[in-house]
Amino acid sequence: MNAKTEIFHLIDPATLPARFAAVRAHSMALAEPLSSEDCCAQSMADASPIKWHLAHTTWFFETFILERFERSFRAFDPSFRVLFNSYYNGVGERHARPQRGLLTRPSLQEVHAYRRHVDERVHKLLSPAYVLAMEDRTQLANLVELGLQHEQQHQELMMTDLLHLFSCNPLKPAYVTHPPLPADEQPQQWQAIDAGIVNIGATDGFCFDNELPRHRQFVEPYLLASRLVTNGEYLDFIEDGGYRKPELWMSEGWDWLQRAGILHPLYWQRCEVSDGAQITELDSRGWHTFSLHGLQPLDPHAAAMHISWFEADAYARWAGARLPTEAEWEHATQQAMVTGDSILTQLFGVCWQWTSSSYAPYPGYAPATGALGEYNGKFMANQYVLRGSSCVTPEGHSRCNYRNFFPATARWQFSGIRLAKQGR
Amino acid sequence: MNAKTEIFHLIDPATLPARFAAVRAHSMALAEPLSSEDCCAQSMADASPIKWHLAHTTWFFETFILERFERSFRAFDPSFRVLFNSYYNGVGERHARPQRGLLTRPSLQEVHAYRRHVDERVHKLLSPAYVLAMEDRTQLANLVELGLQHEQQHQELMMTDLLHLFSCNPLKPAYVTHPPLPADEQPQQWQAIDAGIVNIGATDGFCFDNELPRHRQFVEPYLLASRLVTNGEYLDFIEDGGYRKPELWMSEGWDWLQRAGILHPLYWQRCEVSDGAQITELDSRGWHTFSLHGLQPLDPHAAAMHISWFEADAYARWAGARLPTEAEWEHATQQAMVTGDSILTQLFGVCWQWTSSSYAPYPGYAPATGALGEYNGKFMANQYVLRGSSCVTPEGHSRCNYRNFFPATARWQFSGIRLAKQGR
Amino acid sequence: MNAKTEIFHLIDPATLPARFAAVRAHSMALAEPLSSEDCCAQSMADASPIKWHLAHTTWFFETFILERFERSFRAFDPSFRVLFNSYYNGVGERHARPQRGLLTRPSLQEVHAYRRHVDERVHKLLSPAYVLAMEDRTQLANLVELGLQHEQQHQELMMTDLLHLFSCNPLKPAYVTHPPLPADEQPQQWQAIDAGIVNIGATDGFCFDNELPRHRQFVEPYLLASRLVTNGEYLDFIEDGGYRKPELWMSEGWDWLQRAGILHPLYWQRCEVSDGAQITELDSRGWHTFSLHGLQPLDPHAAAMHISWFEADAYARWAGARLPTEAEWEHATQQAMVTGDSILTQLFGVCWQWTSSSYAPYPGYAPATGALGEYNGKFMANQYVLRGSSCVTPEGHSRCNYRNFFPATARWQFSGIRLAKQGR
Amino acid sequence: MNAKTEIFHLIDPATLPARFAAVRAHSMALAEPLSSEDCCAQSMADASPIKWHLAHTTWFFETFILERFERSFRAFDPSFRVLFNSYYNGVGERHARPQRGLLTRPSLQEVHAYRRHVDERVHKLLSPAYVLAMEDRTQLANLVELGLQHEQQHQELMMTDLLHLFSCNPLKPAYVTHPPLPADEQPQQWQAIDAGIVNIGATDGFCFDNELPRHRQFVEPYLLASRLVTNGEYLDFIEDGGYRKPELWMSEGWDWLQRAGILHPLYWQRCEVSDGAQITELDSRGWHTFSLHGLQPLDPHAAAMHISWFEADAYARWAGARLPTEAEWEHATQQAMVTGDSILTQLFGVCWQWTSSSYAPYPGYAPATGALGEYNGKFMANQYVLRGSSCVTPEGHSRCNYRNFFPATARWQFSGIRLAKQGR
Repeated sequence: MNAKTEIFHLIDPATLPARFAAVRAHSMALAEPLSSEDCCAQSMADASPIKWHLAHTTWFFETFILERFERSFRAFDPSFRVLFNSYYNGVGERHARPQRGLLTRPSLQEVHAYRRHVDERVHKLLSPAYVLAMEDRTQLANLVELGLQHEQQHQELMMTDLLHLFSCNPLKPAYVTHPPLPADEQPQQWQAIDAGIVNIGATDGFCFDNELPRHRQFVEPYLLASRLVTNGEYLDFIEDGGYRKPELWMSEGWDWLQRAGILHPLYWQRCEVSDGAQITELDSRGWHTFSLHGLQPLDPHAAAMHISWFEADAYARWAGARLPTEAEWEHATQQAMVTGDSILTQLFGVCWQWTSSSYAPYPGYAPATGALGEYNGKFMANQYVLRGSSCVTPEGHSRCNYRNFFPATARWQFSGIRLAKQGR
Repeated sequence: MNAKTEIFHLIDPATLPARFAAVRAHSMALAEPLSSEDCCAQSMADASPIKWHLAHTTWFFETFILERFERSFRAFDPSFRVLFNSYYNGVGERHARPQRGLLTRPSLQEVHAYRRHVDERVHKLLSPAYVLAMEDRTQLANLVELGLQHEQQHQELMMTDLLHLFSCNPLKPAYVTHPPLPADEQPQQWQAIDAGIVNIGATDGFCFDNELPRHRQFVEPYLLASRLVTNGEYLDFIEDGGYRKPELWMSEGWDWLQRAGILHPLYWQRCEVSDGAQITELDSRGWHTFSLHGLQPLDPHAAAMHISWFEADAYARWAGARLPTEAEWEHATQQAMVTGDSILTQLFGVCWQWTSSSYAPYPGYAPATGALGEYNGKFMANQYVLRGSSCVTPEGHSRCNYRNFFPATARWQFSGIRLAKQGR
Repeated sequence: MNAKTEIFHLIDPATLPARFAAVRAHSMALAEPLSSEDCCAQSMADASPIKWHLAHTTWFFETFILERFERSFRAFDPSFRVLFNSYYNGVGERHARPQRGLLTRPSLQEVHAYRRHVDERVHKLLSPAYVLAMEDRTQLANLVELGLQHEQQHQELMMTDLLHLFSCNPLKPAYVTHPPLPADEQPQQWQAIDAGIVNIGATDGFCFDNELPRHRQFVEPYLLASRLVTNGEYLDFIEDGGYRKPELWMSEGWDWLQRAGILHPLYWQRCEVSDGAQITELDSRGWHTFSLHGLQPLDPHAAAMHISWFEADAYARWAGARLPTEAEWEHATQQAMVTGDSILTQLFGVCWQWTSSSYAPYPGYAPATGALGEYNGKFMANQYVLRGSSCVTPEGHSRCNYRNFFPATARWQFSGIRLAKQGR
Repeated sequence: MNAKTEIFHLIDPATLPARFAAVRAHSMALAEPLSSEDCCAQSMADASPIKWHLAHTTWFFETFILERFERSFRAFDPSFRVLFNSYYNGVGERHARPQRGLLTRPSLQEVHAYRRHVDERVHKLLSPAYVLAMEDRTQLANLVELGLQHEQQHQELMMTDLLHLFSCNPLKPAYVTHPPLPADEQPQQWQAIDAGIVNIGATDGFCFDNELPRHRQFVEPYLLASRLVTNGEYLDFIEDGGYRKPELWMSEGWDWLQRAGILHPLYWQRCEVSDGAQITELDSRGWHTFSLHGLQPLDPHAAAMHISWFEADAYARWAGARLPTEAEWEHATQQAMVTGDSILTQLFGVCWQWTSSSYAPYPGYAPATGALGEYNGKFMANQYVLRGSSCVTPEGHSRCNYRNFFPATARWQFSGIRLAKQGR
């Protein structure tokens, strides 16, 4: 976190308590419509229970902030140190990930109490009345900001993990009770970008260590699609036999398709919904998708989502295009934000966009020292970078140098496709 | 269920409603100390959530009784037919067993409502006011009795499955808050039984189809241990290297030990319990067991439990003995109950006792027709019979011809060892 | 081997050298048509390479006879003790079973030399000139006989394992070059047997320890099919949807079918054989079987083979019958051999016949002491007994009390079905 | 192969027949010391039998050259099209990869005949007497060259796969009978390279499609180690607890270590070799490595080999360095070859060197059309690039833009570590 220190000083200690309260309250609000049973279950090893997310984000503040800055730290419950540690070997033992759903104790009520308790103590630390050296005060502000960014990441995961859990329930429950809005489809155009040396990585504002250091890359000329691939376009790929043509797929992806019997994106299903659900148009051709709105007819104009890297890569090949590199995505987005005359749309807030880039350290990357160094660095193998943000990313958590990453088979995130092409 | 019909007519229709109410209430009472989270989680594919047990036993009455006898049957919720079907192919589709813990909906409250609703309708059917042909009334009584026996089986499973769930929680919760009573150890003696033709299988009273038909078997002379193997005796086996000597084990059992890293019975652990727990005697040698009372020092005089068939078989070999056959167990128990002069103890109510008998149909066995024929018959492969009953078997659910059965590796039941020997 | 000792003294030391030479030569003759490549490969963990069988049977003589009786024993090659130990923990370490096919060294030539070397030394021991105590001489004869019986078991396995290996080769090689003879189908009749106490187990002649002690069992009256189930009959089962009806199957068997995608017996396939192979009759309905004769049209009159216990059990249920217990099979066969007026046919020499009996020790069973005690006893769990013998069982290796055993899913043996029924 | 066509025209048709003969003969020479058993076995799914390599490389010529250019093509044996197809979906079905070791037929002799037969026909095609259009003649030469490069790749794999097979044999056979030469250790220095735009990818001479198109990349200033990491240095890492410190490892790598129980590089073992093997120095500390020379004391000065990407990455972190990117490796090597004043050693001919670069297409990469397009492109996911060449790479098969690639856990190749660092 060395290089980042300079960036962190921009955090305004005066507004931090309010920001802390707001972010923490948002997690509670997200869980509010759910029962304690909904919050306890875990549908697969990759996902975690809502209750666990609520506790783990609190554990983060307790472990990395209270323990460090409180003069007479005492754990809320010593067993939580192990129970709610996600993956920090530097902190010590941890409860086995696939068994998070078995923690019926502590109860949701107890986790609520844990949150309130830690919140109070963090607020006390943040108060100007709490005596701290100036250097410590800066460190504290930085770490609280990190904890909040961390909590926002988990707010997104709460939604993706809940969606997966509900998808496993034959009752197909809806988290959101109102129906989804129909999407407007934009025409697909190509934004041309020139060759040259570009600067990649964070400049100012908060960032994670994996966005640093800012450095140079050379990009050859390329074209970037003005919008995301739609459900209707993706359906054309399916109906053209895209899932049956090995020549479109990476070898490992093809084997995975066969083994897992995959024939369409996650949460897509072909079915008749009897209870008055109107099949809006011919285009949806009987397909439905399961979303936070429950089971809904496929909207052909909406962005295709819950797509793995292997599927995104195969689709792009079928479409005579390719995925952008993360440098291409970031450079084009930066330009669009600066100049304002770009045709690029749907960069943020719809779904994460797979890039062709394997997740790797930037030249000169140095993780933080201590357990926090495990935050990002140890995952830089066999994962692919996604850029942008999604419809369940919390407000204020998107930026053009943000590096999200998942394995090539991951599908339960809100992940989709923006195409690119060589040349101009 | 052909042969059984004659047995069934003994059920007294006048007392059935009260019996129905009592058994159904007992399931609710068992779940009463638990939160809705506790009732929803599933710790392994072999175990089911408490909520699922509560719903499935209700489904049994709805599917096999209401649907058959009500003149204008309407399902409480049509989706429950699939959700709460355990293994009856004859009834149709079913929710995948390992995913029972993901059913956060319907909620525990809704399952309570389901139970109340079905209870009312069964009571209506059982009322003398409900017009039914005499033959149907007999069938109804028989099936209600079957449903109650079925529910009693699940009452035991609720306890075994909950114990397993709690054992996965590092907080080691206790279901029962008061401490266990120390066991009195009886001297071990051998009951000698002569050779001869013996009659095996059910005579009168309720029985499952697998206890029929009553038939003859020849037994050579044998000796049966007067009591169960104790924790202290089993500890001697462990300390003598029992888990490290392949010559004591079935080949498949030995491979299983190595693969699963098994070194002691399930729920045994070696640990120090700090908070004032008194290590009562030298004999327990630092060992503890996890039980419905939470983590407790091992009581050397109590019966050894949570033992697989492979372990029971290896222990018996180490002890210079063997497991009894199920005919030997049943015959000796029958004699003991008739003559009253037997030295045999702990036959019922402590723990199930593994026999050397593979679970197989009795000569002339015929399962019921229809889906209920799947109750027992289709499990007669690669399982071993246990006899007796356990400390979590409901009152009135034990009998000397009862055939419990589990695979040779099953350990989460309350299962232990009674030794036998050839000769006299 | 205690009880067996009395039986063993019947072996005639004068004829033993010739018998030894004949059995040993037969193994070599079986391998003669095969290349060194054919003899080295291993097609699955359950099967072993021919070369390994040739070496292991030799290892048996070296380890259990030469090492015990030679006054100055020296191993042919000390590494062979580990390489060719099958499963005797009492002898020590062993090469991992699934890796037997990786032993390209020692070469087949070296294994031939090993055989010749050990043969010579055994002959020397058997010579009257070799000075041995009378007791040792008897023990020696008994152990040589055991070694020969052991080698005969492996002669059968050489054929079953080779057949499996060849079945994995798309070239479908034939071990036997001449075509198979068409089978004559006998009419199916039922042999009725009365209830009573019967004696089961070995009397005189050689036997394995698992055939002892002879003891009493009670059998209820039963009917036994006069012949084996034919391919044509089994095809009726398939065409009636036998593999798609869960009600015919054990629960574990049904799960296995689904998981493994099993739709017919092993080595059956539906195909057109172009090169002049005449499809003999309508009855074979396009089906072929792969056998030691290569790929051949299914002979509807021949006995159905390469059938698992699960399939045999399901077939019997479909046919309104059941499998016999091993006591029923042995008793009926004994009677047939004594009285000569039975209608029973195909008891030996066609294929092994699954029984409903789980493989378990006879009352009073005691394995041999030392490593040879592992020969049979440690496999008495989760396996089913087969009776009779097969077309690849060596001459002189069949007897009515012989207990063969395999897991319920095993199909690569020459295993088939003889039906039974309750009553008379 | 579009862009490559220009490069291909450099192939001299006059020398091609001799080159063809030489490369083909070299494969036979490599197999010469081996028995037909050695050539048939397959030790793991990733490796192939020698016989299969000999046949597959021949299949490549038959399928991609004879079939295309011969006027009246007839397959040597039509079944070989499936048997010896490695992974070309475009060619059709193929024999299951993990079952290559079961192909005892065709015999090694038959594969030799296959090779001779195809060789003759290729020679006929290459003869000036064979009438071909000029364009076809160029294409033919290009494809024959591709086939030879392909065969050279398999020559390396023959050695790596044989080494793995022999390592599974407790007899530890040696392929090479003379002892290895002790290595001279060079001092470790750092070669400094300036920042700038560099050109990456093939220029002239043969190349695979994945080396194209040549393109620009920007590199920040870096240091490259002058030599490979030695066994002695790697031993320091082991002895410092490198395999027990999660902070040194990628998260996925750490999980893999635990699951697979990995504590040192492949083929390393700690043992005493009794038969006169002199433990040369203190530095080898009891360790041995298995190599083509058999089991040998670890030479502390030799390059560490048979190391996975995960191990290479962890070692580099422990050493305060990192792995180079493939662009850094290629640029530095290019410079060294051009200027001649570099300190860089061991770039080729010792072992392949892991880079930090995920295997991905160069900007503008286009695979060949047809089945040959599967040669490289479909493997560009979840693999890492290795640069240089190894001691078993055939002469003339090394070049500075060559891109070898394997998954992060692969260890049976001759793969090692060259360190890099940021800055100057």
